[in-house]
Amino acid sequence: MKILAIDTTGPVAGCAVMVDDLIVHTVAMRHGLTHSETIMPAVDEALEGSGLAVGDLDCIAAVAGPGSFTGVRIGVCAAKGLAHAVNVPCVQIHALEALAMNFAGFDGLVCPILDARRKQVYCAAFDVSDGTPRRVLEDAAIPLTDFLAQLPADKRLVFLGDGLGVHKETIRQTLGERAMIAPANLSDLKPEAACVLAARKQDEWREAKELVPVYLRAPQAERERNARLRGENSHE
Amino acid sequence: MKILAIDTTGPVAGCAVMVDDLIVHTVAMRHGLTHSETIMPAVDEALEGSGLAVGDLDCIAAVAGPGSFTGVRIGVCAAKGLAHAVNVPCVQIHALEALAMNFAGFDGLVCPILDARRKQVYCAAFDVSDGTPRRVLEDAAIPLTDFLAQLPADKRLVFLGDGLGVHKETIRQTLGERAMIAPANLSDLKPEAACVLAARKQDEWREAKELVPVYLRAPQAERERNARLRGENSHE
Repeated sequence: MKILAIDTTGPVAGCAVMVDDLIVHTVAMRHGLTHSETIMPAVDEALEGSGLAVGDLDCIAAVAGPGSFTGVRIGVCAAKGLAHAVNVPCVQIHALEALAMNFAGFDGLVCPILDARRKQVYCAAFDVSDGTPRRVLEDAAIPLTDFLAQLPADKRLVFLGDGLGVHKETIRQTLGERAMIAPANLSDLKPEAACVLAARKQDEWREAKELVPVYLRAPQAERERNARLRGENSHE
Repeated sequence: MKILAIDTTGPVAGCAVMVDDLIVHTVAMRHGLTHSETIMPAVDEALEGSGLAVGDLDCIAAVAGPGSFTGVRIGVCAAKGLAHAVNVPCVQIHALEALAMNFAGFDGLVCPILDARRKQVYCAAFDVSDGTPRRVLEDAAIPLTDFLAQLPADKRLVFLGDGLGVHKETIRQTLGERAMIAPANLSDLKPEAACVLAARKQDEWREAKELVPVYLRAPQAERERNARLRGENSHE
């Protein structure tokens, strides 16, 4: 089985190719906000390195959010375009679930947090102790302190994701020794994790046109329009 | 702090750049036995993508083995050459320790195994529960069954590394539910883990000329020569 995964939802743009049960090529780039320029050359490189054409793929996985609205759209549209051109199915991979896969086997709760701006994080908590992510707390876009207050007091916790950049110290101060902060090698969303999830979710493979983003809240333009319609000011 | 890590010791050739506490570029390639051709273009790509020249680096890390003898030499020599040219220090990263970093936080023993051929594995066991790998079983080049027999019966175990390709089923049959087999996203040595270890080992940074490989047993040519000197046949 040959799977390409694309992720541009966060600060790191990346792609990976998996053939059967082996990751054969990975590229991950944290180069500022140029995902729309960098992702397709990286996909070309990964496929060429793997000796594959797009049409050889069995599935294209897009990390579909939550994340940066623009980033979510870039990744979903890149996957959709490629898949539609050669009639290969797509699958939607959830960013928080892909992140949780970095801590497969962790005996406790895996807590991915993404910087959602507006003083919020995109967050969820997973039990991945047997290698399969199971949600213990549902996805939310809430202030970090609200998330931390929901976490059980009797479990080990590990935090990862780009939200650490802003919130690492608050987590340490609030939870102390109970909270492990992911080392840099396990902190970012990995496209290879998206490949693994895509292979396990064959019942969710769909035609390219059915691939949709995961938004945990309405984009800013929609929020502003809705606020205008209600006669409010949406800016905080 | 700017660190480049290079790994060509196993079936996946890769490199990564870390700046301060962030991984900024990763390339990993499983393209057959062409590491000597693929690694330098990948290094160029990673540095260019990161906006860095070789001389901007604070340290170059080489995953120095154990692993394929040829692969070990390619990676060590590439790192040495780059570092010597611009007078940047090098650091030796142990392949099994870098692998163990894939399971930082794991509550049990992390057991990397590499296919050492001749019916042996390169292996060790680490406690990485607090994020820092501590050896519980020393490095060895032994048959897999000998390694499994040494593992404690009262701990969770996770296995990873290219030795899984040959030995996965034996591990499952011998240890059953006690043993977790790493999913594909966490099974390979990651150059970004080598970056993290290199940053933590500043007291081990050395001049390029002092960088040496990690061999757990003598290379085949030496074994054959020694056997000839003893009047034996080293081939099994």
